[in-house]
Amino acid sequence: MKQSRLFAPTLREVPADADVVSHQLLLRAGFIRQNAAGIYSFLPLGKKVLHKVETIIREEMENAGSNELGMPALQLAELWQESGRWYSYGPELMRLKDRHGREFALGPTHEEVITSLIRDEVKSYKKLPLNLFQIQTKYRDEKRPRFGLLRGREFIMKDAYSFHADKESLDVTYEGMKEAYKAIFSRCGLNFRAVLADSGAIGGKDNHEFMVLSDIGEDLIAYSTESDFAANIEMAPVNTVYEASGEEKKELEKVKTDDAKTIEEVAAYLNIETSQIIKSILFIADGEPVLVLVRGDHEVNDIKVKNILGADQVELASAEQTHSTMGCKPGNIGPVAVSENVKVIADTAVEYLVNAVIGANEQNYHYKNANHGKDFRVSQFGDLRFIQEGDPSPDGRGSIQFAKGIEVGHVFKLGQVYSEPLNAAFLDENGKNQVMTMGCYGIGVSRTLAAVAEENNDERGLIWPVALSPFDVHLIAANSKDEVQANLGEKLYLELKAAGYDCLYDDRKERAGVKFADADLIGIPLRVTAGKKAAEGIVELKIRKTGDVTEIHVSELVEAVKRHREILAR
Amino acid sequence: MKQSRLFAPTLREVPADADVVSHQLLLRAGFIRQNAAGIYSFLPLGKKVLHKVETIIREEMENAGSNELGMPALQLAELWQESGRWYSYGPELMRLKDRHGREFALGPTHEEVITSLIRDEVKSYKKLPLNLFQIQTKYRDEKRPRFGLLRGREFIMKDAYSFHADKESLDVTYEGMKEAYKAIFSRCGLNFRAVLADSGAIGGKDNHEFMVLSDIGEDLIAYSTESDFAANIEMAPVNTVYEASGEEKKELEKVKTDDAKTIEEVAAYLNIETSQIIKSILFIADGEPVLVLVRGDHEVNDIKVKNILGADQVELASAEQTHSTMGCKPGNIGPVAVSENVKVIADTAVEYLVNAVIGANEQNYHYKNANHGKDFRVSQFGDLRFIQEGDPSPDGRGSIQFAKGIEVGHVFKLGQVYSEPLNAAFLDENGKNQVMTMGCYGIGVSRTLAAVAEENNDERGLIWPVALSPFDVHLIAANSKDEVQANLGEKLYLELKAAGYDCLYDDRKERAGVKFADADLIGIPLRVTAGKKAAEGIVELKIRKTGDVTEIHVSELVEAVKRHREILAR
Repeated sequence: MKQSRLFAPTLREVPADADVVSHQLLLRAGFIRQNAAGIYSFLPLGKKVLHKVETIIREEMENAGSNELGMPALQLAELWQESGRWYSYGPELMRLKDRHGREFALGPTHEEVITSLIRDEVKSYKKLPLNLFQIQTKYRDEKRPRFGLLRGREFIMKDAYSFHADKESLDVTYEGMKEAYKAIFSRCGLNFRAVLADSGAIGGKDNHEFMVLSDIGEDLIAYSTESDFAANIEMAPVNTVYEASGEEKKELEKVKTDDAKTIEEVAAYLNIETSQIIKSILFIADGEPVLVLVRGDHEVNDIKVKNILGADQVELASAEQTHSTMGCKPGNIGPVAVSENVKVIADTAVEYLVNAVIGANEQNYHYKNANHGKDFRVSQFGDLRFIQEGDPSPDGRGSIQFAKGIEVGHVFKLGQVYSEPLNAAFLDENGKNQVMTMGCYGIGVSRTLAAVAEENNDERGLIWPVALSPFDVHLIAANSKDEVQANLGEKLYLELKAAGYDCLYDDRKERAGVKFADADLIGIPLRVTAGKKAAEGIVELKIRKTGDVTEIHVSELVEAVKRHREILAR
Repeated sequence: MKQSRLFAPTLREVPADADVVSHQLLLRAGFIRQNAAGIYSFLPLGKKVLHKVETIIREEMENAGSNELGMPALQLAELWQESGRWYSYGPELMRLKDRHGREFALGPTHEEVITSLIRDEVKSYKKLPLNLFQIQTKYRDEKRPRFGLLRGREFIMKDAYSFHADKESLDVTYEGMKEAYKAIFSRCGLNFRAVLADSGAIGGKDNHEFMVLSDIGEDLIAYSTESDFAANIEMAPVNTVYEASGEEKKELEKVKTDDAKTIEEVAAYLNIETSQIIKSILFIADGEPVLVLVRGDHEVNDIKVKNILGADQVELASAEQTHSTMGCKPGNIGPVAVSENVKVIADTAVEYLVNAVIGANEQNYHYKNANHGKDFRVSQFGDLRFIQEGDPSPDGRGSIQFAKGIEVGHVFKLGQVYSEPLNAAFLDENGKNQVMTMGCYGIGVSRTLAAVAEENNDERGLIWPVALSPFDVHLIAANSKDEVQANLGEKLYLELKAAGYDCLYDDRKERAGVKFADADLIGIPLRVTAGKKAAEGIVELKIRKTGDVTEIHVSELVEAVKRHREILAR
């Protein structure tokens, strides 16, 4: 396409209210424009990239056996009332009334709509499993939309839903979707991890977020340096093997620690490592007091506490609860001589501690040489702490590092959370009525585009991967008023088109400097410039990513484009 | 794709509330399902056809130099207030508030959004003209949604907008868009006309609707039997050449007509043709009385009356106005001896009438032998009537017939209707500030799909044209439990796929009769059945449209599919 006819308004200034680089560059390079807070238009360049992301997603979803359909954004309130989400979703759910006063939701997601569709159409196990997806505009009235396309109020999602006769069938589809997602984000050139995530109120263990590693991410991930293990930090199990200390157990001894309260203050006061101290924290689990012990250099993970206790609710004890249970302030508590009503559990690391320092349940004092079994009881040891950087990866390969992540996808075993209240049932092989089992699988399509932009740029602009670039080649006539350059540009434009390349040809009557700056900003991977050597049939081929420039005779251009695209696509 | 994994629920019964055949068949064949009144889901088969329609539109729009973009459905109320449509659009415009109480429209169309985008980005004639399109979900809260996808509340449209420095540039793009639309609807296999339409309140002569000729259409079209002339009947000029009567002018004579009031009653009473009578109708044009005369067998077209008078408003006179002006009832009026305050104009046909019968401004009487110039004055003759079937086509080729039409597209010269109030201005070559000139161009995408279904079916189901069919070939193993048939089916499925055909393979364990009925309902143009002669390597190839069946050896199948597709695509 000729750039003189392309609507791609570029900006030289960094827009004032854009605070991440993808947002700045997508605005500056003319890929998007804001219409209202969190609401954007995709200009032609942005729309082209979006199509490419969508095509990759569509291909991989179809390969994985998912059928594309299209459901409406306007969803009857009745359906959301059936699932209960009409009441629980809060102000993120945009609502409106039609001319007859009937209430609708503007869909942020389609569990209710698709479950009602399938319950009406599928009555037999013979029609299961089913896997259906759509690529569609979604609405979520975020309190603070930000980061451009990364957190918008109107955005594009791929959402998929699967329906099964049993859990085993869901497992198969779930694994297939995970593979499809890996293929999709790999083809988009993203550095991502499939991260084990907290399943929140819904329950069920299998729930993975696909996270692009990025400094602007809002989630913290623990990942392995050597394997593809990754988990939200609260979900990562600790498999650290602790060394048994050879030290002899000494006699418990009360020591004065004056005003030292925090682990760091006590360690400094006693001139010991924080890892020689035991941190004691009182929780109330389903109404009962539980004292949790972890090593001083570790942090308690309350999700793990909840899981080990099998409790419904676990909360930190208040100062009043601590005082009534332990007879002291939270900063002074310890496990020695606690009431039998208080359950004491400890992280595995504590099991290996000999002659530790612990709180004495008394202001200004600690105990030295505390040893479990001898000086205090522990009813259960287990994994109760947050993983830390440097811990071995739970899968035994490599060690753990932390990174921030942008969530671009999510796969989730829903089980019967929607099929039960919406009564999506079928007759099984024995003619018995059964509730369907469901999975759901989302990808933020416009967010994926922004994540790619966030990860692929330099100080001059965007650098698109070959698979997503709005055009294959950016052809520039350095001086369009020079007849030789303009004629060569025109000729090469037709040649590249004939060779099957989608070519953006800058035929504008702008200065060469403006053209080059716009080209760097837009970020097409290959740039071909017909400049001063046009008369000799020589053009410049520049790789946007590396900045490498080579002079090439026009007779070899198509071949060179092919070769460099292959290299870049690796 | 294997039909056992396709979500395409078919229905044997005709759905009760579907009253046109396209709606019935799209439901029965599992292409769509209703979610709420006027709101539909596209099931996988429907989505596939929709993609094909969209691809045709996208290709032709891009060929015509239009850039695709994507604007949001949520539109700030402020923009609609600037154009004034927030107040004038009525309950068809769906409105909602966000969590901060800010008002939004759910876009039925995007003139305001795109005009505000372009006014912010384009400041110079150098960037014009621009032509931008999107394919997007639109919302219009119809009072009575009906006919399935033909009149929905949430539907898919292609809308395009062009921006120009002057009218001449708009003219060029307008013609280009008309050509693109002809290509699009031709590729969709539709029998359509580009129909000259009334431009309503917006004004401007160039305004064409693309109408698919169909008995269920809501508009009446006058079209030529020989050329591509077509117009909404109120817009069609009459170019009929009338023969001058050789008859001698007789003396005016008042005759009793008793109770005969209508043209037909008077003609019967006097035993003459209705074409020998002059119909007189009193209008009030911008407050002044105007008597309009047309031949008894013709009908006055008030748009033409308005145009010939250059009036802003033309209305039929009330009984009171008629009495005060003419001294009689509306059924008795005529042009003889009317007050000088009453302007008299007449249709061209009246000019050629000799010795006509006219009202006498007196109950129970008419005049015979009335002749203009002699017995009554006419200040102007002109084209004032509706065209009729049998009239010559205004372009001189063929004669006029009437047909009903479904509007699938609309091209419109907007001029400065939006650019003026929204202040979309640019600097021209002389550095002078000018308001942009605009065009807009819409296609009902989901409606086009329905129009194709409406025109392509028989009593057994849908019959898709090759270009839009959800699959290229429907392959059926008549008895999937028969190993020979199932194996051959599998083999041919892979062969057809390898040859590049998108094949739906019915591998379901259903009776052959169920499979054939579903295949007829779904309407893929070619059906290949591996049945009883599978062991001999012989399959049946059936043309859905004609019902023709031929036996073919599998070695010739791919070639036969290719040949028949070419024949069907002609």
